[in-house]
Formats: sequence, structure tokens, C-alpha cells
Amino acid sequence: MKVGVIAGIPGSGSTTVLTKALEALDYIHVNYGDVMLEIAQKAGLVEDRDSLRKLSPDVQKEIQKNAAKSIREMSEDNNIIVDTHCTIKTPAGFLPGLPKWVLDELQPDIFILIEADSDEILMRRLNDKTRTRDMEKLSDIQLHQEMNRSMSMAYAALTGATVKIIENHDNRLEEPVENMINTLK
Amino acid sequence: MKVGVIAGIPGSGSTTVLTKALEALDYIHVNYGDVMLEIAQKAGLVEDRDSLRKLSPDVQKEIQKNAAKSIREMSEDNNIIVDTHCTIKTPAGFLPGLPKWVLDELQPDIFILIEADSDEILMRRLNDKTRTRDMEKLSDIQLHQEMNRSMSMAYAALTGATVKIIENHDNRLEEPVENMINTLK
Amino acid sequence: MKVGVIAGIPGSGSTTVLTKALEALDYIHVNYGDVMLEIAQKAGLVEDRDSLRKLSPDVQKEIQKNAAKSIREMSEDNNIIVDTHCTIKTPAGFLPGLPKWVLDELQPDIFILIEADSDEILMRRLNDKTRTRDMEKLSDIQLHQEMNRSMSMAYAALTGATVKIIENHDNRLEEPVENMINTLK
Repeated sequence: MKVGVIAGIPGSGSTTVLTKALEALDYIHVNYGDVMLEIAQKAGLVEDRDSLRKLSPDVQKEIQKNAAKSIREMSEDNNIIVDTHCTIKTPAGFLPGLPKWVLDELQPDIFILIEADSDEILMRRLNDKTRTRDMEKLSDIQLHQEMNRSMSMAYAALTGATVKIIENHDNRLEEPVENMINTLK
Repeated sequence: MKVGVIAGIPGSGSTTVLTKALEALDYIHVNYGDVMLEIAQKAGLVEDRDSLRKLSPDVQKEIQKNAAKSIREMSEDNNIIVDTHCTIKTPAGFLPGLPKWVLDELQPDIFILIEADSDEILMRRLNDKTRTRDMEKLSDIQLHQEMNRSMSMAYAALTGATVKIIENHDNRLEEPVENMINTLK
Repeated sequence: MKVGVIAGIPGSGSTTVLTKALEALDYIHVNYGDVMLEIAQKAGLVEDRDSLRKLSPDVQKEIQKNAAKSIREMSEDNNIIVDTHCTIKTPAGFLPGLPKWVLDELQPDIFILIEADSDEILMRRLNDKTRTRDMEKLSDIQLHQEMNRSMSMAYAALTGATVKIIENHDNRLEEPVENMINTLK
């Protein structure tokens, strides 16, 4: 069966598009962070998600790898769509969400990047009262999306997976949803 | 001897530039798809090119790998220039033409990307009566060229090959031809 | 300990920013080319830097790999910052400074790209009387910086390292210096 990966920067609306598209698709939705947490909890390493980030990089790497392996196994009987980050913006720079050792285990068939215009993303973030985020400038938002495009090409070169870019503009949710359904069905 | 790879999106004029440049170069011109077809035919898997795409992904992957191996072997006695796609635009997104398992066998020395301005490419496609293509918007053409640039960098990181971008603008064919000759000679 | 890599195209000011930042950081500064030269000299292969480029590609590759190994070993006791090129512009195109076989040995934790606006870089190059460079157009400078961004994403996918972009604009040296100190400390 297939393993798809979906990613989008905060405010891209990737979760909204995914949730809606899944109503018409025969895919199991998996959040990469959740799988990592579950594995770490079973191993008695952490109790909650915050502790996960405090583990040593080597241990985190091992958990990350095992999560990929576990998701790949799930895909034997089901189509899987994995919700994760293409790159994560950290104080040390853009961190790849799916470095080589993860991709080698995960063997994804397709990466879907959900994008929107930088100003749409900025406004969505300003209107999102549930989160207090460090506000980024338009140029930062644009850079993050550009870096995700480049990174997804590197992921594709390593795996042979396709990279689909889906635009999610304001007030036209049905378009990206239909696009995603047609891409994954 | 050298293995060069040349690619350009439809309308970039990569074949025209290549054909003209080859008059002055000591290189054997190989089309990647042709080599794959030949291998599949010899193995009794297909009769024509269309059937190639209908084979299972695993079989296609194997043929793709064997084609790379076969081209690498040709390069023992001759300089080879391989005509292929950097990325192929499919309904599932941009597909890498040279994923890792191909590059590992092919070991190219140089990637040449033939580019033109998006509007030049659009007009060339409109004027090409020999093919009926789904017409792409300027922004789609620009995106495809951008994705090819990113992808070629990933190919370079994996192989150590150089990436040469050659612009092929309208009515100035001699410039990209000379550029390619100087690059490959 | 950490291995950081810093790169920037000529005129980006990467050396200036690095030198200044190192005053406040506990890092050993290593120039990749110097390490390669030292290794080649010890092996009796060359006497000076120019001869290095005249060695066969295979020998150069071996030296490049050994340099990475040697730098990784230094990092056992010290934080290391390696000064190198993300891509090198050659007549055959953009050459990756850190291809896979180097990254596999070097295992960097972070890539820092020092950037500036294309026109700032152009003017800095024009004013640099110590070097006679082939003058590049603004569009060439922009392309080189774009290619470095893409390449650094490929490096990140291969290693799991982060990619930090630091802008070094005219007359504001303290900003990139502070940024680099905060990133590496």
C-alpha cells in the first residue's frame, strides 16, 4: 500500500485540507510526532511530548528511526498518510523533518506540500488566537516555504517519491481538498 | 571517459541545443528512455514504450537501474551524454528522473540544465503543432524550472557532479550551443 | 562536540563575520582547503595549493574524504567551525563543496550560509582591490546564492544538520556576528 507524507508551514492549513480530504479517502492518518511519543513512552523514556525534545540527540534519532519503521509496517495493510514537518524552524536553523535515516525506513511514495501566499499565512497566524507564536515577517514565511520546496526535492532524490505542491488559498478550501483526493486516490 | 546528463522541460529546446552541439563534440548521445525500452524488450517484458509505464513500479525501478549500469559501461570507451528528465511532471507531482539508485549506478560527472524564460517556453509550446500538450500557465512553467534547479543540486550532493545551467533564448541558438561545447569538450 | 560549517559566496563577508564571532566563541576555526593541502603535503603529493587542483579527480576525492575524517576527529575534544564553499562556481558548473562522501565522514551539526543582497555583493567585489575576479552580473550572484540554498537543503537531508541563513548587510556587521554567536554558543 502507499505511504504519503503531508507537510506545510504553520498557517498553510495543511491539517484542515488533510482532515477534509480524508473523508473521501481510504487512508489512515498518522501524526509523526505522536508515533515518536508512543514509542518513547513504551520504552519508558518519557511521559509527555515536552520531555521528548530533552532526550539526547542520539536517542531522539533512534526514536525517529523506529517511528519510520513502525509507520512503514502499518502500510503493509493500509494506505498511510503521515502528517509531519518538511523542515522545522529552530534557533539553529531549518531542521530537516525527514533526514536520510528516516527516509530509508519510511520509503514514502509521495510528498505533499501545502502552500499559501505569504500574506495569507501571515493573516491566518494573526487571526489564530489559540496559539501565541513568534510573529514572522513576510520574507521569513516566503523563505520557509522556499526551503521546504528545496528540501522536498532532496527527499525525492533520495527516495524516488514524487513531490506534489498544493495551494490552499483563502475561501477556496474545496480546491486543495479535491486536488489532494485526486492525487491520493 | 565522461558521463554527462542533459535535461530541460518541454519547450526549453534541450534537444535542439544538444543536437547542434554534438556536431562539434566527441560524445555518444544516449536517450535514457530508449535504453530502458531496449532492456525491457530484451528481457521480453514489453514490446513498446507505452507498455513500459504499465509495468509494476518495482520492475520499472529495476529496468531504470539496469539502464544506468549499461550507460556507465558504455562510458568506459566513450564520452556519453544522456538525454533525460530532471523531474517529470505527473499527476502525483514531480517525479525525480534520476533517483539515488540510478545515480549510484550512473555516476554522472555533470548535469546540464537547459532553461529559457517562462514566456519563451509558453510561446514555443503554443507554436509546436506536432504535439498536443496540456497547456501550462507561466507560473507552472516557472515552478517546474525552479524544481529542476533544486533537484539538480540534490543530484550533485549525491554524486559530486557539477550542475551547469545554460540559457537558450529565442533567436540566439549559437550561444547555448557554444556554451555547451565549451563545457563538455 | 559540535561541527559547524560556514559558507558564503565571495563578497558575502563570511570570513569577516566568522572572525569577529569567533572572538566570543569556544570554537576552533578550520579551513577545509588548508586541511586538504596539509594532508596532500604529508603524503608527498603536492607542494602548494595550486598543484592540488591538478591531481586526478580520484586522488582529490580521497584527500577530500580524509580531510573530513581528520576534522571529525578534531571535534572529539573541541567545537569546530569549518570554513568552506557550499558550491564552487567552475567552468563545468556549480561543484558541490561537500558531496555525500565528505558529509558521511564530516557529520556536521549545522550549516551556516552567510548571505547579502546581490547588489551589496557586487559593490563589495568592485571595491576589493586585492583580488582580480571575473566580474559577475547581479543575476549570476543571485543564482549562486539560490543554488547554495538548495544545495544546503540537500546537505541537510543527507546529514540531519540544520541550515541557518544569516544576512550580512552593509554597515551592520554587529547583527550577523551576534546572530552567529547566538546560533553556535
